[in-house]
Amino acid sequence: MNVGRLTVIGIGLIGGSFARAVRRGGAVGEIVGCSADAAELRGAIDLGVIDRAETDVAAAARGAGVVMIATPVGAIPAVFRAIAGSLGEETIVSDAGSVKGSVVAAARALLGRHFPRFVAGHPIAGTERSGVAASLPDLYVNQRVILTPEAETRADAIATVRALWEAAGAHVEEMPAGEHDAILAYTSHLPHMVAFALVNCLGGAEPASELLRFAAGGFRDLTRIASSHPVMWRDIALANRDELLRALHGYQGSLAEIIAAIEKGDAAALEAIFARARALRERLGNAGQAHGQSKMPPS
Amino acid sequence: MNVGRLTVIGIGLIGGSFARAVRRGGAVGEIVGCSADAAELRGAIDLGVIDRAETDVAAAARGAGVVMIATPVGAIPAVFRAIAGSLGEETIVSDAGSVKGSVVAAARALLGRHFPRFVAGHPIAGTERSGVAASLPDLYVNQRVILTPEAETRADAIATVRALWEAAGAHVEEMPAGEHDAILAYTSHLPHMVAFALVNCLGGAEPASELLRFAAGGFRDLTRIASSHPVMWRDIALANRDELLRALHGYQGSLAEIIAAIEKGDAAALEAIFARARALRERLGNAGQAHGQSKMPPS
Repeated sequence: MNVGRLTVIGIGLIGGSFARAVRRGGAVGEIVGCSADAAELRGAIDLGVIDRAETDVAAAARGAGVVMIATPVGAIPAVFRAIAGSLGEETIVSDAGSVKGSVVAAARALLGRHFPRFVAGHPIAGTERSGVAASLPDLYVNQRVILTPEAETRADAIATVRALWEAAGAHVEEMPAGEHDAILAYTSHLPHMVAFALVNCLGGAEPASELLRFAAGGFRDLTRIASSHPVMWRDIALANRDELLRALHGYQGSLAEIIAAIEKGDAAALEAIFARARALRERLGNAGQAHGQSKMPPS
Repeated sequence: MNVGRLTVIGIGLIGGSFARAVRRGGAVGEIVGCSADAAELRGAIDLGVIDRAETDVAAAARGAGVVMIATPVGAIPAVFRAIAGSLGEETIVSDAGSVKGSVVAAARALLGRHFPRFVAGHPIAGTERSGVAASLPDLYVNQRVILTPEAETRADAIATVRALWEAAGAHVEEMPAGEHDAILAYTSHLPHMVAFALVNCLGGAEPASELLRFAAGGFRDLTRIASSHPVMWRDIALANRDELLRALHGYQGSLAEIIAAIEKGDAAALEAIFARARALRERLGNAGQAHGQSKMPPS
């Protein structure tokens, strides 16, 4: 399979890695990159990630077989608006956003008659780094990609997007957008909020310099994802607001249970809480072994 | 330096690794192990970690040059009580507990005239595994060990305990017990509570099986320390109650700040919160590089 020209809008870690992977997989012809960030575009050309750079979104989409949108989630609606008038009758559009419900709703509202050829997607892969210089051709190898097609999405469009991700080495599965958002709220978005809060708590405590010196071990592993891109996470948190708030309130409850047991000095309750976590965590360890897994934090 | 007979009380990951390390470092003669757990004692003999097993704490301490207590923190006072009558006039006592203020207070109350030869210590190393089978002779190589001597602690006792840890490959530093407990509350004890709460929150959400399947990536790294020993962490949480509650309340504040910004849909505030965390986390990354660091979560 070769989809012809691929246009990647947003050529950072996710878009850049996608371009490198599908080119290596022989699944595309020319690759056009588009970004509002001139330095990123230049970097993408210099690294051979893209063949041609465009700064105008509508122009970048014109003549593409597939348009992949890999901007932060908050920028995706504006991209839909910009490309709607320049899509070909057979052009397939997809995205790599970490939230799917709001993206699908925006696509339905803004892509008009092109909506049946829009396939919402999310590669569950990434690193805490960002930018095209961090992109890797094997970022998606053995990683999961979730597609969330709607009732009117064309089967051939789904098959094409699936084939591209498979050419990148990923395992593709489909589920409803709402289910995706509920799962990712707990397994990815909540952990990021937890890590951001943990680092900020340390930063607000005294003496910060001593704390930093001793925080270098396990704390560092636990909070690596707090280095993730602020704009990307701002957009995810707002786009998946309801599900994320549900997860955050559940988490506050779990935390309050621990705090209450410590305040009461209730040794039996504390031991039971920690034992419950350990047992569940060990099931997770086994679940992880059963499936090929990366060490990278997903988004 | 050779301290003669070493008695290790509590021969799990921490005590077993200490025995292996100082034997390899040539710093001890016979090593006597003591544990309430017969299987652990047998394992320690079979693995060559100790030369002789004792189930009676007082008998184990008799004739020792150094007694190292490596039980969970909550069991340490009972050990002090048991050994006080059988310590020699020159026997040095130390411990490896993760909390120091409460241990020092118990030693002062229970060791009587032997207190000046008690040197409180804490190796900042470990893994989420436990038990003598997980012990490693190089667990402490390039790791920090903090000693928290009091005004009346004898300098020669401090020097001996320092030399043992240095023979194990560790970097030793001294600070007041209260400072140790405040620092560890933020850098180690709080992150463990955060990980326990995160796993329990996921375990309480629906559908748990789907969540577990997707939680296998970054979530797994973030929550590895939730597999730590429930009894050990129950004891730490209670022994460092005041400092840990202070850290937990600070953390609740950092979390509430994020939740409030999401609830209000305040994009600018969210971006600022995440950017603050990222900047601090990157300072941490550099601080970590400057010092030899393991990937293991400390306790």
